[in-house]
Amino acid sequence: MAGSSFGNIFRVTTWGESHGIALGVVVDGCPAGLSLDSGDIQVFLDRRKPGQTKIATPRKEADEVEILSGIFEGRTTGAPISMLVRNTSHHSADYSEIANYYRPGHADYTFDAKYGFRDYRGGGRSSGRETIGRVASGAIASKLLSEFGITLTAYTKSIGPIDIDMERFDRQAILETSTGMPDREASAHAERYLADCMKEYDSVGGVIECVIDGVPAGLGDPVFEKLDANLAKAVMSIGAVKAVEIGDGVEAARRRGSKNNDSFRMVDGQVVKSTNHAGGILGGISDGSQIVLRAHIKPTPSIFSPQQTVNKAGEEIDISIKGRHDPIIVPRAVVVVESMAALTVLDALLANAGAKLENLKKIYG
Amino acid sequence: MAGSSFGNIFRVTTWGESHGIALGVVVDGCPAGLSLDSGDIQVFLDRRKPGQTKIATPRKEADEVEILSGIFEGRTTGAPISMLVRNTSHHSADYSEIANYYRPGHADYTFDAKYGFRDYRGGGRSSGRETIGRVASGAIASKLLSEFGITLTAYTKSIGPIDIDMERFDRQAILETSTGMPDREASAHAERYLADCMKEYDSVGGVIECVIDGVPAGLGDPVFEKLDANLAKAVMSIGAVKAVEIGDGVEAARRRGSKNNDSFRMVDGQVVKSTNHAGGILGGISDGSQIVLRAHIKPTPSIFSPQQTVNKAGEEIDISIKGRHDPIIVPRAVVVVESMAALTVLDALLANAGAKLENLKKIYG
Amino acid sequence: MAGSSFGNIFRVTTWGESHGIALGVVVDGCPAGLSLDSGDIQVFLDRRKPGQTKIATPRKEADEVEILSGIFEGRTTGAPISMLVRNTSHHSADYSEIANYYRPGHADYTFDAKYGFRDYRGGGRSSGRETIGRVASGAIASKLLSEFGITLTAYTKSIGPIDIDMERFDRQAILETSTGMPDREASAHAERYLADCMKEYDSVGGVIECVIDGVPAGLGDPVFEKLDANLAKAVMSIGAVKAVEIGDGVEAARRRGSKNNDSFRMVDGQVVKSTNHAGGILGGISDGSQIVLRAHIKPTPSIFSPQQTVNKAGEEIDISIKGRHDPIIVPRAVVVVESMAALTVLDALLANAGAKLENLKKIYG
Amino acid sequence: MAGSSFGNIFRVTTWGESHGIALGVVVDGCPAGLSLDSGDIQVFLDRRKPGQTKIATPRKEADEVEILSGIFEGRTTGAPISMLVRNTSHHSADYSEIANYYRPGHADYTFDAKYGFRDYRGGGRSSGRETIGRVASGAIASKLLSEFGITLTAYTKSIGPIDIDMERFDRQAILETSTGMPDREASAHAERYLADCMKEYDSVGGVIECVIDGVPAGLGDPVFEKLDANLAKAVMSIGAVKAVEIGDGVEAARRRGSKNNDSFRMVDGQVVKSTNHAGGILGGISDGSQIVLRAHIKPTPSIFSPQQTVNKAGEEIDISIKGRHDPIIVPRAVVVVESMAALTVLDALLANAGAKLENLKKIYG
Repeated sequence: MAGSSFGNIFRVTTWGESHGIALGVVVDGCPAGLSLDSGDIQVFLDRRKPGQTKIATPRKEADEVEILSGIFEGRTTGAPISMLVRNTSHHSADYSEIANYYRPGHADYTFDAKYGFRDYRGGGRSSGRETIGRVASGAIASKLLSEFGITLTAYTKSIGPIDIDMERFDRQAILETSTGMPDREASAHAERYLADCMKEYDSVGGVIECVIDGVPAGLGDPVFEKLDANLAKAVMSIGAVKAVEIGDGVEAARRRGSKNNDSFRMVDGQVVKSTNHAGGILGGISDGSQIVLRAHIKPTPSIFSPQQTVNKAGEEIDISIKGRHDPIIVPRAVVVVESMAALTVLDALLANAGAKLENLKKIYG
Repeated sequence: MAGSSFGNIFRVTTWGESHGIALGVVVDGCPAGLSLDSGDIQVFLDRRKPGQTKIATPRKEADEVEILSGIFEGRTTGAPISMLVRNTSHHSADYSEIANYYRPGHADYTFDAKYGFRDYRGGGRSSGRETIGRVASGAIASKLLSEFGITLTAYTKSIGPIDIDMERFDRQAILETSTGMPDREASAHAERYLADCMKEYDSVGGVIECVIDGVPAGLGDPVFEKLDANLAKAVMSIGAVKAVEIGDGVEAARRRGSKNNDSFRMVDGQVVKSTNHAGGILGGISDGSQIVLRAHIKPTPSIFSPQQTVNKAGEEIDISIKGRHDPIIVPRAVVVVESMAALTVLDALLANAGAKLENLKKIYG
Repeated sequence: MAGSSFGNIFRVTTWGESHGIALGVVVDGCPAGLSLDSGDIQVFLDRRKPGQTKIATPRKEADEVEILSGIFEGRTTGAPISMLVRNTSHHSADYSEIANYYRPGHADYTFDAKYGFRDYRGGGRSSGRETIGRVASGAIASKLLSEFGITLTAYTKSIGPIDIDMERFDRQAILETSTGMPDREASAHAERYLADCMKEYDSVGGVIECVIDGVPAGLGDPVFEKLDANLAKAVMSIGAVKAVEIGDGVEAARRRGSKNNDSFRMVDGQVVKSTNHAGGILGGISDGSQIVLRAHIKPTPSIFSPQQTVNKAGEEIDISIKGRHDPIIVPRAVVVVESMAALTVLDALLANAGAKLENLKKIYG
Repeated sequence: MAGSSFGNIFRVTTWGESHGIALGVVVDGCPAGLSLDSGDIQVFLDRRKPGQTKIATPRKEADEVEILSGIFEGRTTGAPISMLVRNTSHHSADYSEIANYYRPGHADYTFDAKYGFRDYRGGGRSSGRETIGRVASGAIASKLLSEFGITLTAYTKSIGPIDIDMERFDRQAILETSTGMPDREASAHAERYLADCMKEYDSVGGVIECVIDGVPAGLGDPVFEKLDANLAKAVMSIGAVKAVEIGDGVEAARRRGSKNNDSFRMVDGQVVKSTNHAGGILGGISDGSQIVLRAHIKPTPSIFSPQQTVNKAGEEIDISIKGRHDPIIVPRAVVVVESMAALTVLDALLANAGAKLENLKKIYG
């Protein structure tokens, strides 16, 4: 069953493995007339590249995007936009060991169970490099959304026990810190915490928050294609995400209705909510407030500490994973969460065009 | 944009409004040869009916299912199964008031924003009665899954501040308590808590957990159609759900990798995990362990306490919602969560049939 | 695999069998705000009912539509529109014979091969009554298209060897003749021909043409979702259709390019074509001319003449089909072709809303 | 709206323009475990390359396929297979003229109407080169089908007025003649006819037939996903196809039922049909006989003879298309028809896996 596509109207199809020739994505359904060049994509891809800091994996990939189709004279034509990034730095190294056992917390065992065998080099299709296609297409979605005044901002909210302080929110810090935190103090704290993790041959999880501003009321659907349902799928489809919250999320489940309902008020002739516990979505449809979601991400499963597992011969063995790995997934996943949210909101915006006869009359007269 | 269908291979399409003539569902793609009658469906529908206790809404609907197609001589034929439930007890009462303002926490405003107007009687399409189609089709999915030894068990895990104690887990209690808790002590406690909520003209949220046993390793997909991603969408598409967790969920995000990884072991010649922090899914694919998910559900938005809102004329007003409403959504949503999970797992099971050539050779020789 | 849905944005899902309780359709994705009542649907359904003439089957069904959801205060709400028609006049008669053998030209054998068994009463799901859902939803699509000045006209073009004469084209005759021919002379001729067929215990095929006026240039897609490709699928999905032509169709394949190309000209400041060999579609996209398609329909397979076949026990037998059957499928299929074409064009119109940024700016400013 | 994907379970997404950097396809949903290398693809691609004869376009492209993902150790892994072919020989030449007017019979005008502008170089996305992705993926589908004993054979049936004689059917000739005809005499005749066309600055149409052997009874669906409906869409989605026939096609519409029905007989304990007017499909489902379909293809619209048209400024002009063009589309489209048919049958085979509980029990025990 085809499972590498996301979206109905603006549909992206990703392909590629960690140690294959290249990874990429085909973006189909992009409206014609959007000004676009590879620089727009590269900015996003650069955000998912490892930084220069101690917490990042030493694999150095240029990750330069090539746009192969769908653009003419600087604008999208309506035809599919095919993009690829070549794998340049991988060494086909020695994977003979990893080929034979199942790493705890990885998809080795489940791939074998499903497909009968697997491309074990660097995780193959289950590698984090699969997100290259998501981010490249997310860059286009974000640019298109910005044409309608919609902007997305994702950032690291917590790393292990260290939370950001929203009072110190500093948008610029998201791109400038190694953690993706919008709070330089918390980030410095988190860096020290991560250094300790590494010393202890361990890893840790964290939380990414994404806020979306400028979404008009009315996007989404009342039943299965609820905007929050699609955001949940989008975000949970990112490897290592174990929980998704919308608005106040898990808190709402412990709260009284009188404290959880958001009142409606009038401001400048517009219906607005006086609070935003709902996170910008009511009944599956955007309410005009800021959309807020959080992704909870597990620790990097590759750790240097010895672990028990099983090999393909069915023997119980002790392993110690070699190579170097990030002690945390979160910072590099920030732009992935933002990209998946952008793809989801854009698809809802496009789907909404035919929600009422009145909209269609604006186009077809 | 069509948004009332769920599933790719086993696809359900629900329809109907709270105060329309009927609500129903068409189940398309059900394999031929499953023994099925209306009794199988009714058992599930009865689980979502209000109980006889103080915490339940007094609207009394028989909710008797009629199967209109797709069954012949007691078995599914492969043709679509159309089912409906008539709305019998609603009074078209006086909705003139509700028609003119936007209830906080409800979809009134967002429906108007999207469609230009709305069927305001009892919430129309956004009513909890929409779940009738989900549950009726979930009953079929569950029966089909049981043919492969897969069983689902959903229950109330917490109501407001009251959590169940897994040491007292009593499967029978799920169906026998008014709360859907598998712990009679916690349930009694929660009933008292809910009685207090009602006295205070308030409502409260809670958490539903669903465990799925017997799922073979290998169901799901590595990228966008991850089993956990589809479960997240399925569950988040239920009205009032604000967060979804898989396995240890939000806890995993605060944990070290050495504590979060599940080791593989051999038991009776089978690869098993010694713990199940992952909740039965690795890399988007089932790993053969129990699948565990949780839905966090907000408090009933309809409360008797006075609230501020806005009417269609753009005036700020104070309202006090009339009628009677459950002080909690959770107990009646238990079977809805179970149904959505069943639909998702079944679709993954069907999709997996063609995952490897070897499977197809078993069918086509 | 779900196979009873058609369309992406305006999606219809039909259900029901010839001798079940009812047949129906769920229309999902209909824009809100269309004025609609059951009369709009009934007009279409009445066109597929057998007439009072000698050439029609004597099964008399009222085929009265019930709309169960999706309409409020006379307008579509954007929610799914569920419609059903009850089967009233069938006798569960004696199907013991038909249950055991495979009628030539019918789907009896192929259903058994696919599903292992079948609902043999009156053809079950493969009955012509399955088209009730197509026609009921086609009525809505047609009404919606008429809001944009798009109108469809289908008619019988030939019956056996008798062709209409376009010089005598009389639109009113389509609804008034028993043949659906827009030429009263040809129709009278065809009626005599059909009477002869019946005397000879035989049946005959024919051709339906459908023209679509007012389609703006630009609907459709350049690759797999070509407007003609979707029309071909739509029409070929009607039982008994064996060929589909667009524009000059099979003639084009014998022709020189210099005779087949349509020149562009300017008329009233509009780009138009001086001829229309292409049938209104170039490169899969509507060109603003009249769209023309033809469906070639095989003779009714149920004939009274003795035929050879095989029974379920694998014995070769001679059969003689009882009951009464139309000697031709064509007249009752006219409105089915028109409906399927309407569904296809409407879906293309809705899909086109996001084809260029400029369209979206008209909606979202 | 995304329109560059075909198939539900085995889904292909093509991309690329005539004069872009490359063209390609992503094949998603291919079962794991199929032995595959680029040679399997190249054989198919070579069949769509222009020959060395007088009737072929002089554009010489190597059209060498690169497989970028989805294969490991010589077998498909279940991950998407990304393939591309670079455009090497095009000259960005002088398209200033063509950029400004609408060529009769081409998609120039309709692209502008839909998207607001177009990539006019060599037809852009509407170029015949778009079929590279279809053929590359069709090669995989064909190889997979051959694992189940299903084989496809497409060939040129007629060119202008010259038909093949089935008595002289010579399978080898399909690949060896410049026309793709399985009849060397007819092919020689057709070559002379085409030489005359070219002398007269003209082009001509023709017919491709495709037969599919070894399809088991039971593939397809009874309603919208009929096997013949999907074949019709598949074939009509190829540029220049104006009609599609299944089995006896248009002939069936003029015939009596007694002559059109195929009797069932027993041969070697198998149910077979004594004739095959139906072309191997009954009620939308394969009946175990040979599947037969025909595509009717219009003449090449690019001709050297002067033609009337309109430019973007809205002026009526006379044009004379330069460059060199094949006088017929048919021979190079043979492998495209075969590929589209293969994709369709394979998708039906995969979809059928879950048609009955019995099939699923073979996989899941």
